[in-house]
Amino acid sequence: MEENMANQELAQELLEKKSFNALKQLLSEMNPADIAEFLKELTNEELLLAFRILPKDQAADTFVEMESDDQETLIRSFSDSELKAVVDDLFVDDAVDILEEMPANVVKRVLRFTDSHTRKWINEILKYPEDSAGSIMTVEYVRLKKNMTVDQAIKHIRRTGVDKETIYTCYVTDLNNKLIGMVSAKTLLLADGDDVIDDIMETNIIYFNTLDDQEDVANAFDKYDFMAIPVVDEETRLLGIVTFDDAIDVLQDEVTEDIEKMAAIIPSEKTYLKTGIFETWKQRIPWLLLLMVSATFTGKIISSFEGALSSCVVLTAFIPMLMDTAGNSGGQTSVTIIRSLSLGDIEMSDIFRIIWKEIRVAVICGLTLAVVNFAKMLLLDSSSITSDGQSAFMVALVVNLTLVVTVIFAKITASVLPIGAKKLGFDPAVMASPFITTVVDALALLVYFNFAKMILGI
Amino acid sequence: MEENMANQELAQELLEKKSFNALKQLLSEMNPADIAEFLKELTNEELLLAFRILPKDQAADTFVEMESDDQETLIRSFSDSELKAVVDDLFVDDAVDILEEMPANVVKRVLRFTDSHTRKWINEILKYPEDSAGSIMTVEYVRLKKNMTVDQAIKHIRRTGVDKETIYTCYVTDLNNKLIGMVSAKTLLLADGDDVIDDIMETNIIYFNTLDDQEDVANAFDKYDFMAIPVVDEETRLLGIVTFDDAIDVLQDEVTEDIEKMAAIIPSEKTYLKTGIFETWKQRIPWLLLLMVSATFTGKIISSFEGALSSCVVLTAFIPMLMDTAGNSGGQTSVTIIRSLSLGDIEMSDIFRIIWKEIRVAVICGLTLAVVNFAKMLLLDSSSITSDGQSAFMVALVVNLTLVVTVIFAKITASVLPIGAKKLGFDPAVMASPFITTVVDALALLVYFNFAKMILGI
Repeated sequence: MEENMANQELAQELLEKKSFNALKQLLSEMNPADIAEFLKELTNEELLLAFRILPKDQAADTFVEMESDDQETLIRSFSDSELKAVVDDLFVDDAVDILEEMPANVVKRVLRFTDSHTRKWINEILKYPEDSAGSIMTVEYVRLKKNMTVDQAIKHIRRTGVDKETIYTCYVTDLNNKLIGMVSAKTLLLADGDDVIDDIMETNIIYFNTLDDQEDVANAFDKYDFMAIPVVDEETRLLGIVTFDDAIDVLQDEVTEDIEKMAAIIPSEKTYLKTGIFETWKQRIPWLLLLMVSATFTGKIISSFEGALSSCVVLTAFIPMLMDTAGNSGGQTSVTIIRSLSLGDIEMSDIFRIIWKEIRVAVICGLTLAVVNFAKMLLLDSSSITSDGQSAFMVALVVNLTLVVTVIFAKITASVLPIGAKKLGFDPAVMASPFITTVVDALALLVYFNFAKMILGI
Repeated sequence: MEENMANQELAQELLEKKSFNALKQLLSEMNPADIAEFLKELTNEELLLAFRILPKDQAADTFVEMESDDQETLIRSFSDSELKAVVDDLFVDDAVDILEEMPANVVKRVLRFTDSHTRKWINEILKYPEDSAGSIMTVEYVRLKKNMTVDQAIKHIRRTGVDKETIYTCYVTDLNNKLIGMVSAKTLLLADGDDVIDDIMETNIIYFNTLDDQEDVANAFDKYDFMAIPVVDEETRLLGIVTFDDAIDVLQDEVTEDIEKMAAIIPSEKTYLKTGIFETWKQRIPWLLLLMVSATFTGKIISSFEGALSSCVVLTAFIPMLMDTAGNSGGQTSVTIIRSLSLGDIEMSDIFRIIWKEIRVAVICGLTLAVVNFAKMLLLDSSSITSDGQSAFMVALVVNLTLVVTVIFAKITASVLPIGAKKLGFDPAVMASPFITTVVDALALLVYFNFAKMILGI
């Protein structure tokens, strides 16, 4: 794989040395995804130059793999015939992906060079809501009839297959275009030439509706190991298919989105370095503001125990440790629950099993932490914590009782909130560490000060 | 898709009513992955009963989809002939996946029923390190010779294809078994019967070595949209292939692992509900302990400013807000960097660009937060913060200057640590919120108390 990096650097050198023949030769041997990586680093003029050198049959494949601002630059610079050459070779789903990111005048220019049949489909798919199964499907699939023989079907594939996104899963439809079966190229190849499709096709088909969530479609690929999944309308008429490579992209995007939400970021479609300073600010500031204001409550709790605190200032020193441990304990649980929910490993109905498990884990985690911390406080900190007129033992008792109770509270809160959010129709991912931390911080301090009052009599 | 859930419930009912014929009929129409979900809920006796009802051709496919403890139960309960029937139908890579989770005596029993050729391969693959390309490859692929014609190749596929994991990508090897080309079933089907493989095969092949990281292999599927990738030895002799469905599994597992690490959890292979209480404790307690002990330093900072704090107790009330905001700001950045690194969107060489970007984002985030908080403190909190003899304005100045500086520090720290970890060969994912929080908490407090001393003269 290191070879690919080396090729990209070599291409860069050849371009700088204007060795265009050698560059053309090198590019013809590179994978389109690697060529796109090489193009990413170029200036606009270099980009156009390098793209024009590309062998014809790689141009469209490379174009699909490029970043959308580079695509836009090229579309704006292309001559009419260059644009037509690229557009002709695009699959409908790729064309849609590209156009979704473009300004209206660029979309218009591209659509002018697509044939009317393709244009109709592109417009159709652009209408489906973002993140729906319809928005990621392609319409270039192989359609068979149930009374075809295997030989006829193979002949049909040979005649029409070159323009199809996949020929490996073929779909069987009736006269009304209803999906009635599917048959793999493997089945066709291994069957007898005289066999009839009706007899060898699979009729228990897992399919999705155009408006289903693309994440559900992608998860089905993970679960069933399919190469393609059909997308139908309300009357189970076949409209398109989603292929595994698009499903992988959706899975990666959805994971990135979840991870961003878990880190209190509003997701964006752009990659990190392509996102501007103000866009990044807009992704990050809402949650920072909300959480900052929420932390006011935690501050109020401290204020209301100011008297107790000033009569035993040493207690303040343990606030960071208690807050961090509460946040970390809660974060562990919430993140585990969020990921398990999204993988389908747990369901909302498991909630009581989950809470019961978390309580038991919390008890032993809390006790372990408290024992270690108790020992540490008595052995290492005892001089500094007795200085206040309270015995080190009593202070340590307050801190470590708080630790145990807080870990239990934190883990229960962190298991209930994501499941509750899902139940209410919200995305559980926002119930991750940052939000949980703010909630359990307040709980931790309430417990702490109340134990302090009870045990130290302050 | 709801239909699948309904089928599982119906199957459950039929089993309870002992309507075995109806159950058999229903199971024959269900997808193996859905059958496995139905079996997951059964008792051991029910499981064996239901599995025996399964149509022969679904038994092995279902077995592969089951959880490993159910697989173990079945292997232990199977008669010799039942075991042989299932084992005969397993692909080598699936057999390896299953056996990796089994105790030695179960492995032995299974291997006794595999033919010597398969057994040799299973043993071979079991030897590759966990998480290596070799450990996830399968050896059941189609191998062609370069002097075959297309007709001969298709005949070869028809003869041998039934036992292959995929027939859609075929590999061409020379007499020494070196990988020299590949050709897709689509190319074969669309080519002329007399064409020679040598003329139509693709010779620029992306391949991996057996010891390469499985995550790199999975990422290549994401990047190149391949259906299969070949795995070779040091002399580029073809040993096996990895298929896209296994790559999706690896991607999902690696993401789960990253998410767990980011939440200060030691990753496990088991799903949440299958992990015992003590195992869960073992995953969670090391980081909790480490972070608790690290928070001691933050406590020490507070202790050393005890004098300043007791002369202006109101400062304590803002500690949680400052700590949380520092942690959240840092967490946003570190998680973005970690995910971008793992998607390959950024490289280590981008570090200065990243730091420069984060500084600018931090400045405007910090200023926004400070302005809002300043207004809030003067409008809502001014009575409570003047009570200490300090003017509300000066206290607010200290708090909000700290806020700005802390957010900048936090975002710089959070961009440097993950990239630094990667540079040093550690997993950047551990440099996520929990660790960053502990580091930036200490920074925040140092800044806070120093500003307080300077500005309030305490």
